[in-house]
Amino acid sequence: MEQTLKKFKEYYKRMKQYEQAGTMLAWDMQTASPKDSVDSKIESLGFFSTEKFKLSTSEEYGQLLSELAKTENLSKLDDGMKLTIKRELRDYTRFKRVPEAFYTEFVTEKARSEHAWEEAKQKDDFSIYEPHLDKIISMTKEFVHYIEPEKDVYEVLLDMYEEGMDSHTIDTIFEELKEGLCPLIKKITSRPEPDLSVLNGKYDVLSQKRVQDLLLEYIGFNFDRGTTAESVHPFTITLCHGDVRITNSYDEEAPISSMFSAIHEGGHAIFEQNISDKYIGTAVEQINLMGLHESQSRFYENMLGRNKNFWIPVYDKITEIHPQLKKVPLDVFMQAVNVVRPSLIRVDADEVTYCMHIILRYEMEKAIFIDNIPTKDLPELWNKKMLELLGVRPKSDAEGIMQDMHWSDGSFGYFPSYLLGSIYDGMLLEQIEEELGSIDDILSKGKIKEITLWLNEKIHQYGSLYTSKEVLQRVCHKEISARPLLDYFTKKYN
Amino acid sequence: MEQTLKKFKEYYKRMKQYEQAGTMLAWDMQTASPKDSVDSKIESLGFFSTEKFKLSTSEEYGQLLSELAKTENLSKLDDGMKLTIKRELRDYTRFKRVPEAFYTEFVTEKARSEHAWEEAKQKDDFSIYEPHLDKIISMTKEFVHYIEPEKDVYEVLLDMYEEGMDSHTIDTIFEELKEGLCPLIKKITSRPEPDLSVLNGKYDVLSQKRVQDLLLEYIGFNFDRGTTAESVHPFTITLCHGDVRITNSYDEEAPISSMFSAIHEGGHAIFEQNISDKYIGTAVEQINLMGLHESQSRFYENMLGRNKNFWIPVYDKITEIHPQLKKVPLDVFMQAVNVVRPSLIRVDADEVTYCMHIILRYEMEKAIFIDNIPTKDLPELWNKKMLELLGVRPKSDAEGIMQDMHWSDGSFGYFPSYLLGSIYDGMLLEQIEEELGSIDDILSKGKIKEITLWLNEKIHQYGSLYTSKEVLQRVCHKEISARPLLDYFTKKYN
Repeated sequence: MEQTLKKFKEYYKRMKQYEQAGTMLAWDMQTASPKDSVDSKIESLGFFSTEKFKLSTSEEYGQLLSELAKTENLSKLDDGMKLTIKRELRDYTRFKRVPEAFYTEFVTEKARSEHAWEEAKQKDDFSIYEPHLDKIISMTKEFVHYIEPEKDVYEVLLDMYEEGMDSHTIDTIFEELKEGLCPLIKKITSRPEPDLSVLNGKYDVLSQKRVQDLLLEYIGFNFDRGTTAESVHPFTITLCHGDVRITNSYDEEAPISSMFSAIHEGGHAIFEQNISDKYIGTAVEQINLMGLHESQSRFYENMLGRNKNFWIPVYDKITEIHPQLKKVPLDVFMQAVNVVRPSLIRVDADEVTYCMHIILRYEMEKAIFIDNIPTKDLPELWNKKMLELLGVRPKSDAEGIMQDMHWSDGSFGYFPSYLLGSIYDGMLLEQIEEELGSIDDILSKGKIKEITLWLNEKIHQYGSLYTSKEVLQRVCHKEISARPLLDYFTKKYN
Repeated sequence: MEQTLKKFKEYYKRMKQYEQAGTMLAWDMQTASPKDSVDSKIESLGFFSTEKFKLSTSEEYGQLLSELAKTENLSKLDDGMKLTIKRELRDYTRFKRVPEAFYTEFVTEKARSEHAWEEAKQKDDFSIYEPHLDKIISMTKEFVHYIEPEKDVYEVLLDMYEEGMDSHTIDTIFEELKEGLCPLIKKITSRPEPDLSVLNGKYDVLSQKRVQDLLLEYIGFNFDRGTTAESVHPFTITLCHGDVRITNSYDEEAPISSMFSAIHEGGHAIFEQNISDKYIGTAVEQINLMGLHESQSRFYENMLGRNKNFWIPVYDKITEIHPQLKKVPLDVFMQAVNVVRPSLIRVDADEVTYCMHIILRYEMEKAIFIDNIPTKDLPELWNKKMLELLGVRPKSDAEGIMQDMHWSDGSFGYFPSYLLGSIYDGMLLEQIEEELGSIDDILSKGKIKEITLWLNEKIHQYGSLYTSKEVLQRVCHKEISARPLLDYFTKKYN
């Protein structure tokens, strides 16, 4: 057994090195690579991902895994290694069933489809995208049939991004949320919009970066274990142990946007930076719980960042960096941060109507994978649902079904994670107030790091050791429910 | 033969991928990596370099190389592939002779020694560094005995950094230079130093970066094939085809320093960016001619950058970015750029006395590897030579023998490249003026890119296909001589 474990670890480490080389390339392509190096970088990405695929589906690796997965062997391993063996064996079994030619074609078609989506969105012409979307949908179905021939396609997809989650649970909590939110949104939007013209002006990029660093430091991002860069869309990425990075993008006329992106990505990063060192080199470090991940980013962004008390200890420092804000009272700044209005674009939506954007996408995905609605009918279905859920109707597919990139590269099943994250946040907020006292008090006293420490201890250190359902049971001692989130919205906006 | 060539190319490509992964890691460590990721990055570097070493010394690879190196096979290959086979076979033969345990210890000792040097320099205590320097010297001798048992150690070291170069050639041209320079330096330094206090002030980093980008664009750096970043010491690095990067460091009180670093590194980068596409995937892309490489960076830095006419087309744009320079007439700016004064530190030296710094290091290296002077006597020898060559004597070893990092990691034989580069530049300057007309005219008319194009055509496109001696013969139709450089100095400073 010792010999087998040693051999397995060598395999696993080697795959990790290939994977990290790929991650480093992906990071570089999004933050620094010059135009003429793209082909060479893509070739390298392909090289390392093929090398990894070969190792992960090799006969020898499969034998090592089967041996270690035997009850008498598995029982001798620690938690991290147990999870690693189980997950690797599952993936080995799954990927062994995928014909290599199909896999290559699937990967290639994803790249083609993404490219077609970009062009179609830019030209606002769904017909360019439609054949690719259609192919990606049918290939996704085929792919899932290979890897899990016995299961429902959409259940497998949901489980891929939020392990242990199922459509039955989601149906229940999304329905609860939808019913509670509809009247609330109507009520809020009947009030007049605040005048925010005092915020107008130019806010230079260097100052925005300084504010970003101040906010990251404030919420507990560890600069010894991470860094920042600029990219088209903000994202978080883990390059290796001790290196979790976030990116941001800056609009000189919208300084609040980069502040909230920093807080959001900072939340993701704080999660990854605080996984316990004892799980180094295990699958625990690979967080395949996107709902839980989004719950951390959205907790900082919404539960903390959209609370006035969050800003009390830092607003003066921010106005030192952006002197234009000196004429903007904190109350007006908070109005800007908390405007609630139905809109067409998900990424620009406020915390309340955002929920409806996700429910729409979840219903669309069920229409695609359960009801098998033809691809050509999807744009109209989208528009109908927008009107029904948000009361607005897109004038074009670019601001309708083509606004997000997720489906173009086959990331079906990811969208619900965003809203699951917020739902978990409602529960976490309740629990924190029970254990640590009023969030308003903690924040206004500048003790936000106490909250970060609480999250570190209760959630972050375990990485992906427990599923989200298990985490909420362990931390909040409750079943998942949308009620706390609804309470939070109702209390805040009533 | 076709089959063999195909197999060889697969090997070579795989090694390239490992090497590029290592280069990417090295780049990242110097420009972005957070503190806590250093151990993980070093582990990855070790992984990829070991993988590459294993492949490059494997029996199968050796057989492929011997087969392809047969005259009847080699003759069928194009120039780039010919060079690749020859160089790979040489390295295979060399490295096969190095005992693996020795190699590992050598690599490790280099890292230890570099670390000791850092500490010793910081504490100004040669005794911390001495045992490591001593070990590195003896291990370097041993290493060279392994790889080239029949040759003189120092000749092999020189050839490593400037292929085809030998101490006899260097002795002759350095001697010629030394004799010409001594009286000239005396003459220049007898004149009073200019008053440059008008330059004093604070120049913010963002503006320095904008000036850097303007200068890079001006001299012909291609931003589609490269990018820039910040690091402790400026350097140039090629990550892959189409991606040549430079770094810079910025001192708010010394804006001219980052301008000249940008021009210098830009020169290196322009060389690498313009290697012909037909040599992709061959050894031609790996430039092991550091003298030729330095000749390109120093040509831009000194021959062009220290010429007033270089600045005429851009000085107004620069003063727009640094308004503090509006009160500094171009003539005063040029005085600052061309102050000649003997000093202790090589990297801060002017273009004239810089030559003496290199001659000193060359003489020291000969003392070490030919005369076998004991390590403990080296600091005093350094100080004696400083007094003899530059008329100044270091007060401490930190500003004496410990100022450069080169020897700490075993880069013996590199130093002469800097001065060889300048010597080549004297010859190139003469040739350009013969072919294109007066440099002053070309520059003042803003046609600097004509010079870049000339260098692209005559030198850059061939990468390392020809040795420096061959390049100068092909381009200038002359043997290497220090006379043109001396003429340039004499004309400029008399």
